[in-house]
Amino acid sequence: MKYPNAIKKTTRKTIDYANRGMDLESDLNLTNTYYLENNIAIVHKKPTPIRIVKVSFDNKKHATIKEAYFRLPSTTDYNGLYKGRYIDFEAKEVRLKSFPLSNINAHQIEHMRKVINHGGICFIIVRFTTLNKTFLFKGEDLIDYIDGEKAKSIPLAIFEEKGYLLKEAFMPRLNYIDIIDIAYLGGKV
Amino acid sequence: MKYPNAIKKTTRKTIDYANRGMDLESDLNLTNTYYLENNIAIVHKKPTPIRIVKVSFDNKKHATIKEAYFRLPSTTDYNGLYKGRYIDFEAKEVRLKSFPLSNINAHQIEHMRKVINHGGICFIIVRFTTLNKTFLFKGEDLIDYIDGEKAKSIPLAIFEEKGYLLKEAFMPRLNYIDIIDIAYLGGKV
Repeated sequence: MKYPNAIKKTTRKTIDYANRGMDLESDLNLTNTYYLENNIAIVHKKPTPIRIVKVSFDNKKHATIKEAYFRLPSTTDYNGLYKGRYIDFEAKEVRLKSFPLSNINAHQIEHMRKVINHGGICFIIVRFTTLNKTFLFKGEDLIDYIDGEKAKSIPLAIFEEKGYLLKEAFMPRLNYIDIIDIAYLGGKV
Repeated sequence: MKYPNAIKKTTRKTIDYANRGMDLESDLNLTNTYYLENNIAIVHKKPTPIRIVKVSFDNKKHATIKEAYFRLPSTTDYNGLYKGRYIDFEAKEVRLKSFPLSNINAHQIEHMRKVINHGGICFIIVRFTTLNKTFLFKGEDLIDYIDGEKAKSIPLAIFEEKGYLLKEAFMPRLNYIDIIDIAYLGGKV
């Protein structure tokens, strides 16, 4: 059995055949490729931000980065365009039954506030891996929770109440565009 | 004199004091920071796409990338949100009096076509460094030129005719948002 993406270092005691060994990022990559190829939406994951320190040129055409460091992202990981609208989101997997807000850094929260204020569609996609449930949770609800509660995490119950459960399927793997229609563009359930 | 960004390897025979040693990327970074801080628009440069091969962990908190390679970008470098609209562009400096189309790869052209078809605002910003002139050139005009002409470059005269000259100033350095108002959103010159 081949996995399309590198397997995470976190070892699982039992292999979850229901999700076929796919992590959320792989599912979203497949989904975004499907949307792109079928002319539904244009969504890309941003490259990992790094600070390059040393590059060696073995020959004129071939540069090798020899020293670089990961940087903290100042925006969310995904953005793009759907039905003329700007969309922007972050995706996270959690193993607990709550979503620790430390998963999203202060710059990212600030970014999400700005996107909402400028008329963009902004949300998070959170997968609770032990339950194999993935939710789309609106940025507006995330901000409300952060501003209203002093809690350090959002319990699963809040996702069940306010979030939108994403269906998993063969293609697209994780149909979040249908949920955008419902949650933002007045589509019917 | 300190430069806010790494100086390019291409040596200039004469230093152009008119543009204060700033390259286009630095100008756009300053401009985007100005737009962000003044709540005008949210535009970020995407990180350079790289393929990471080897990472060493000196300690648990500190990871150093020891081997990585540059990848060809499949989208444009900049995207964001302005007045609820998705905006997307690529920026290039050229030393010639024409813009070689080899500056933009086939994936990027394909991406620009899609963005236009999905209702996004898409353009290129091209600086002719020897003239110290910087133009915004609409993606629609770029695509028309590529589809209509068999030429490998776009002459300066076409930029003068169809493009929009960007004003350089102290703040914002390169006011392309005003041009978006004029070129796309029905604003007055």
